[in-house]
Amino acid sequence: MNEHFLKAFTDSTLKVFRTMAFTELQPGTPFRRTKQDTARGDLTAVVGLTGDMNGSLAVSFSESAILQVVSNMFGEAVKDINDEVCDAVGELSNMISGDARRVLEQHGFRFEAAIPTVIDGKNHKINHPFPGPYQVQPFTIGTEGSCFIECCFEGSQNTATC
Amino acid sequence: MNEHFLKAFTDSTLKVFRTMAFTELQPGTPFRRTKQDTARGDLTAVVGLTGDMNGSLAVSFSESAILQVVSNMFGEAVKDINDEVCDAVGELSNMISGDARRVLEQHGFRFEAAIPTVIDGKNHKINHPFPGPYQVQPFTIGTEGSCFIECCFEGSQNTATC
Repeated sequence: MNEHFLKAFTDSTLKVFRTMAFTELQPGTPFRRTKQDTARGDLTAVVGLTGDMNGSLAVSFSESAILQVVSNMFGEAVKDINDEVCDAVGELSNMISGDARRVLEQHGFRFEAAIPTVIDGKNHKINHPFPGPYQVQPFTIGTEGSCFIECCFEGSQNTATC
Repeated sequence: MNEHFLKAFTDSTLKVFRTMAFTELQPGTPFRRTKQDTARGDLTAVVGLTGDMNGSLAVSFSESAILQVVSNMFGEAVKDINDEVCDAVGELSNMISGDARRVLEQHGFRFEAAIPTVIDGKNHKINHPFPGPYQVQPFTIGTEGSCFIECCFEGSQNTATC
């Protein structure tokens, strides 16, 4: 995967959460995930990407992380994952994808984005039917919450540089 | 949503399951789902679509349904959802998307498909951050298994005809 890809999605995630959800994410160390080390989350938005390469972006949260984010975003305490929370996650993911795609276009990569689908289910696994590895950027939110973005592109296992 | 869309995905699903997984699906009555009637599944492949309209296809199974399908496909009894099952679901979804897109192109609609992401989590909810409705085609497999395809396109709530 080109070195610009994960950085663009990471920078856009930090920016979108700061400006739209009034939440400062703490980025951890990015890593590559193999198929043997499956990702898990409680709420995940999946955004399909097509264009110069076909891929997929997952933006995934622990329950406590997303409840902190949407409480900041809505200006009131949100206690449970409901339709409004799912809509907010879909909208944030759309914005991340849109912002990152603008940046990547400046580096010569053109992508289009599908509409997000949001999966709500305690401790679900997120799998890609490609051999991987998948580029992952983890974040923490406050003292307890964790979230990550994971991107996967066709052929990325052959050209991964980030 | 154009009347061809759900029919193309439905016909391709029947064909791909018959030829690749040696499984005859029994189609039920298609319907429109609203946001208030959230879909649930145990294993779901999400395929993002871009092109003349941006959308998303979900292919979702109950656990018993997918275990029947992959047991037929692999020629041996599969008892649990594992990485191979997730890969098979991703691959079947890819084929459904590819076959339906070829049919839709003959009707003048051009779509590109992202790579599938497969979510494995008992009784997860599948949400779209768009107002809907979402076009759903349910199927049964044998006596117990159930699965469905659900497609959603930007702007489909204004032009739904199927």
